[in-house]
Amino acid sequence: MKLKFTKMHGAGNDFIVVDAINQQVDLSTQQWAALADRRFGIGADQVLVVQKSDTEGCDFRYRIFNNDGGEVEQCGNGARAFVKFVTEKGLTTQRAIRVQTMNGIIAPRLEDDGSVTVDMGAPVLEPALVPFDSAGLAGWAEGGDTLWPLSIEQPGGANTVFLSVVSMGNPHAVQVVDDVDCAPVEQSGPLIEHHPRFPNRVNAGFMQIEGRHRIKLRVYERGAGETLACGTGSCAAVVAGIRRGLLDSPVQVSARGGELSVAWAGIGAPVYLTGPAVTVFEGEVTL
Amino acid sequence: MKLKFTKMHGAGNDFIVVDAINQQVDLSTQQWAALADRRFGIGADQVLVVQKSDTEGCDFRYRIFNNDGGEVEQCGNGARAFVKFVTEKGLTTQRAIRVQTMNGIIAPRLEDDGSVTVDMGAPVLEPALVPFDSAGLAGWAEGGDTLWPLSIEQPGGANTVFLSVVSMGNPHAVQVVDDVDCAPVEQSGPLIEHHPRFPNRVNAGFMQIEGRHRIKLRVYERGAGETLACGTGSCAAVVAGIRRGLLDSPVQVSARGGELSVAWAGIGAPVYLTGPAVTVFEGEVTL
Repeated sequence: MKLKFTKMHGAGNDFIVVDAINQQVDLSTQQWAALADRRFGIGADQVLVVQKSDTEGCDFRYRIFNNDGGEVEQCGNGARAFVKFVTEKGLTTQRAIRVQTMNGIIAPRLEDDGSVTVDMGAPVLEPALVPFDSAGLAGWAEGGDTLWPLSIEQPGGANTVFLSVVSMGNPHAVQVVDDVDCAPVEQSGPLIEHHPRFPNRVNAGFMQIEGRHRIKLRVYERGAGETLACGTGSCAAVVAGIRRGLLDSPVQVSARGGELSVAWAGIGAPVYLTGPAVTVFEGEVTL
Repeated sequence: MKLKFTKMHGAGNDFIVVDAINQQVDLSTQQWAALADRRFGIGADQVLVVQKSDTEGCDFRYRIFNNDGGEVEQCGNGARAFVKFVTEKGLTTQRAIRVQTMNGIIAPRLEDDGSVTVDMGAPVLEPALVPFDSAGLAGWAEGGDTLWPLSIEQPGGANTVFLSVVSMGNPHAVQVVDDVDCAPVEQSGPLIEHHPRFPNRVNAGFMQIEGRHRIKLRVYERGAGETLACGTGSCAAVVAGIRRGLLDSPVQVSARGGELSVAWAGIGAPVYLTGPAVTVFEGEVTL
């Protein structure tokens, strides 16, 4: 069986995109994982599958398989690639489309410059819901945010870091650093990720404030280590920076894999993430 | 400009293979490196370019670009992919072909089972030519080989390892271990690689003897770290094992990326490396 696919990336987060409307696609977990393998397969962080939607008012259904073959709920960078793909392949002529995902309906929009904006939902700021266990811990108020002091055991003695906690559907702990290129992402990242006050573990963000509309960001992702550009991490960092009074919307986020832009109107409002989606090549694989 | 390519692998060492006979290919170092990038490009260890030969008696010219874009001399796993490619694409109907490389002419052969055998040349066993500086070091004779005791400074005190030194065009230091899965490849590998007695650094092999015709092997490659299946490392390990009287030719080599087979008739004879070459997918990239 032959399968046509397109290889894309969004700020270095890379995808195999498969049209399952015009070709028959019914693969096992093992087959998705084999396609995503970087040496024995095509290679990607995720496989994105474009299907017809069975939900009223939706244009497409969008399924995401991680490179271990498991299906996951959400991927901000992937949603951008999805929109670019259905546009380039002529599967839609609309600029704003409604897409059914495992997590509900998302409504991404293709911008005039070719970038794509995705509504990432409203941030969750209540510590217990992130989830973060703040019991018995004295928070430090800054602007409208609370910074939580966390003891991180490192070689050379304990170190206290001050963290904002935010959920964008997944948990984030964000700290401000002077110089993100020198930040101890590889050392502190796993210690924050596994800190017992985060019962579901956490993504650790390190943000350098470059101006009221510009940050540099590195994120140590839960279960993945440092990545080139974390979409939800960018949203969480900007939300934390705005609440602390350090940033104003919109904010340009400079990540190692590329530039993203985040807009947020404040409590209760959704976060909008805008960024690039690039088609790298077309391929056909024999299964 | 559009460029057609084929993605292949040989025991997990993966390649972008480009037909430069039927399409115009003239790329810069930066473009080769961009194609080999695993997230922003196609992704591969090396790019293999198939050209017409300008040398009498040669069927093809074979050029190899590393994923940093630089051109290199030799790649045993790549030569297998090369033969499979020119056969599958109908560029030749011969089973044994003569190929011009930067390093001279090689003569790989397609076997009946689809695997490919490559003549890797005769091993160089004189320590000074590997190169290995044995000055003032008392070697330990075993069979026809000399084992060299090397002090490796490790946490917890110095450790002596006993190494065979062999060049297969590149330098190798091979040691026998009881259980290759528990061998300290990540810890000792870089210490052996950078030991001052190897002026050009060295590839560090860890071989477990499973029988007179079978080994398990892991190799810490110079400048690359542990790889899935090192072609020249397999040859060096088998040569060392035969010289030490532990192995008889041919020897099946079980590496993490797949199975290879090595045959060697003894001093002065070339080493023959046989292994798989697999086509993964066909693609077209826009440059």
